[in-house]
Amino acid sequence: MTLSVATPNAPLDAAFVQPDEAEFSTWLGEHLQRIEAALERFVVPQAPADLQGLVQAMQYAVLGGGKRLRGLLVLAAQQAVVSEAGPLGASAQEAAIRAASAVELIHAYSLVHDDMPCMDNDVLRRGKPTVHVQFGEARALLAGDAMQALAFELLTQEQGSALPDSDHAGVPVDTAAPVVPPIVQARLCRLLAQASGPAGMAGGQAIDLDHVGKSMTQQQLQRMHELKTGALLKGSVLMGAYCLPGVAPQTIAALAEYGQALGLAFQVVDDILDATADSATLGKTAGKDEADNKPTYVSTMGVEAARQFARQLQQQACAALANSGLPHERCMALHGLANLVINRSY
Amino acid sequence: MTLSVATPNAPLDAAFVQPDEAEFSTWLGEHLQRIEAALERFVVPQAPADLQGLVQAMQYAVLGGGKRLRGLLVLAAQQAVVSEAGPLGASAQEAAIRAASAVELIHAYSLVHDDMPCMDNDVLRRGKPTVHVQFGEARALLAGDAMQALAFELLTQEQGSALPDSDHAGVPVDTAAPVVPPIVQARLCRLLAQASGPAGMAGGQAIDLDHVGKSMTQQQLQRMHELKTGALLKGSVLMGAYCLPGVAPQTIAALAEYGQALGLAFQVVDDILDATADSATLGKTAGKDEADNKPTYVSTMGVEAARQFARQLQQQACAALANSGLPHERCMALHGLANLVINRSY
Repeated sequence: MTLSVATPNAPLDAAFVQPDEAEFSTWLGEHLQRIEAALERFVVPQAPADLQGLVQAMQYAVLGGGKRLRGLLVLAAQQAVVSEAGPLGASAQEAAIRAASAVELIHAYSLVHDDMPCMDNDVLRRGKPTVHVQFGEARALLAGDAMQALAFELLTQEQGSALPDSDHAGVPVDTAAPVVPPIVQARLCRLLAQASGPAGMAGGQAIDLDHVGKSMTQQQLQRMHELKTGALLKGSVLMGAYCLPGVAPQTIAALAEYGQALGLAFQVVDDILDATADSATLGKTAGKDEADNKPTYVSTMGVEAARQFARQLQQQACAALANSGLPHERCMALHGLANLVINRSY
Repeated sequence: MTLSVATPNAPLDAAFVQPDEAEFSTWLGEHLQRIEAALERFVVPQAPADLQGLVQAMQYAVLGGGKRLRGLLVLAAQQAVVSEAGPLGASAQEAAIRAASAVELIHAYSLVHDDMPCMDNDVLRRGKPTVHVQFGEARALLAGDAMQALAFELLTQEQGSALPDSDHAGVPVDTAAPVVPPIVQARLCRLLAQASGPAGMAGGQAIDLDHVGKSMTQQQLQRMHELKTGALLKGSVLMGAYCLPGVAPQTIAALAEYGQALGLAFQVVDDILDATADSATLGKTAGKDEADNKPTYVSTMGVEAARQFARQLQQQACAALANSGLPHERCMALHGLANLVINRSY
């Protein structure tokens, strides 16, 4: 799977701030690889025999696929706030790769549960059979639950405690890894919990569920998406920004605004793609929204107005970065990701 | 519902260390009330209108019922390691009530998912219709997911960050509450994640699933239960012990041993009750294990040997407390809870 800023299926040509394509493309390739490698290291590669069944379903759900947009946002935001080498930089990088893996685990678990028969009842995801089709519903349910817990485990590290941890079959304790300050660990856990809980992703999914076959105002639609997909996207940006303690409040606020606009833009483009692309390109069933009679930005405002709205949101995201006080070159990846979100073809 | 050490249905008379019954009974009543009040405060009492549907299912699942054994273990262990008043005591108490609520949320979510048609397909829990019967499967799934996230949110607190949190619809920010040190917050998150993830509760459930209709050695059975129920029970004890930073390693190790033995004892008694009590007493369907052809301590060793094994485990738990170096009077509640686990009738 390539994720370069290639000719999209339906180009939105929103080149408001066009980062150097080659530079961003290199960044993207390197950081996708870092995320994949981290997930392979973290998602229980040496599980004991009696946990293999569960772990296989988890690995199937999270490894080897996906845009990794959430993880990339963590890494890009972390790099925007800290460029230093040395212990400070190493600790922030360790926090960021753990956070990137954690948000990908949360996203992947939400897809596993969302695809189940009692929810969207979907059979195709990332071009493969969905987890419950492959492993059965009970195992899909448990794998999702376990992935959520593992996400929070990743965000924390042993702190030389007396806890007998050596026989623990979860994430291996890597004593050589830099230690993330506990205040950062705790904050990352809080941000992830808020982004994925009742006032975040799970809440948005519940609102979605309540409105199948019903009409929604654009305000209600926006609120639903701010929770359902926006919270974790914005949360990913904030988690990246909080990988270092002591970042200035106005920087955090600017990055929050970037994350908010980008999260909404992502959903608007998602709705456009669902209405205009085919299943093979998307790697999941296209046209689901209309078939399920779900309100979307396309059904509410039409395709053209939705495209324009997405471009506006990208401009808003980029303006937030420009006003953040962060050096422009450190925001290269954040600009590139905003561009990618708008111009993606799946 | 009374939870005093009343005449059990099938008395196990294991009075190895019998705490003062009246003193423990008072402690129990007070602390059950504290947990109920905390859960009412934490489980999103002021959710916005569009989240009411989800939040009602969460509240239905966790409020007003249950033995609260896990929450009580947190509070009892915290009190065993710190008796001081003052800021240190207040912070440890705040950590403990949050941890007690968090473990109850995790336990409750696991029951919601476990009762679903694709898992145990049960319709009765705590004497009421199960969550999916009452609210539908999709909402039950989401409510469980949201409860897990909320558990981790409870374990963390705002730390005067610039994060715009005031519009957050989750746990209200209580600026008057004592601040738990970040190192404690991070440790509690780690312990809870480990206890409930692939190498804990979720892993145990997966092993259980793999062995329906198959025979198991006693060793395999024990390993399954150590994960499925033991990990969260032991985790609750450890979380209580870690509510204060700097507790001596040998104290932690002793409490871990207590938690390990108590966790296993709980499961052995569970198997005995499933085989010998009726549904009305249990508040859930009795005789499920045999009907589902599941291996249990009763099917493996018979009722009498299982009773004796439970008593041995209680003795082991009490011996660990005696060797912990903690003053006997501070372990009153832990002794009482071990006694309760063995002599419970549901």
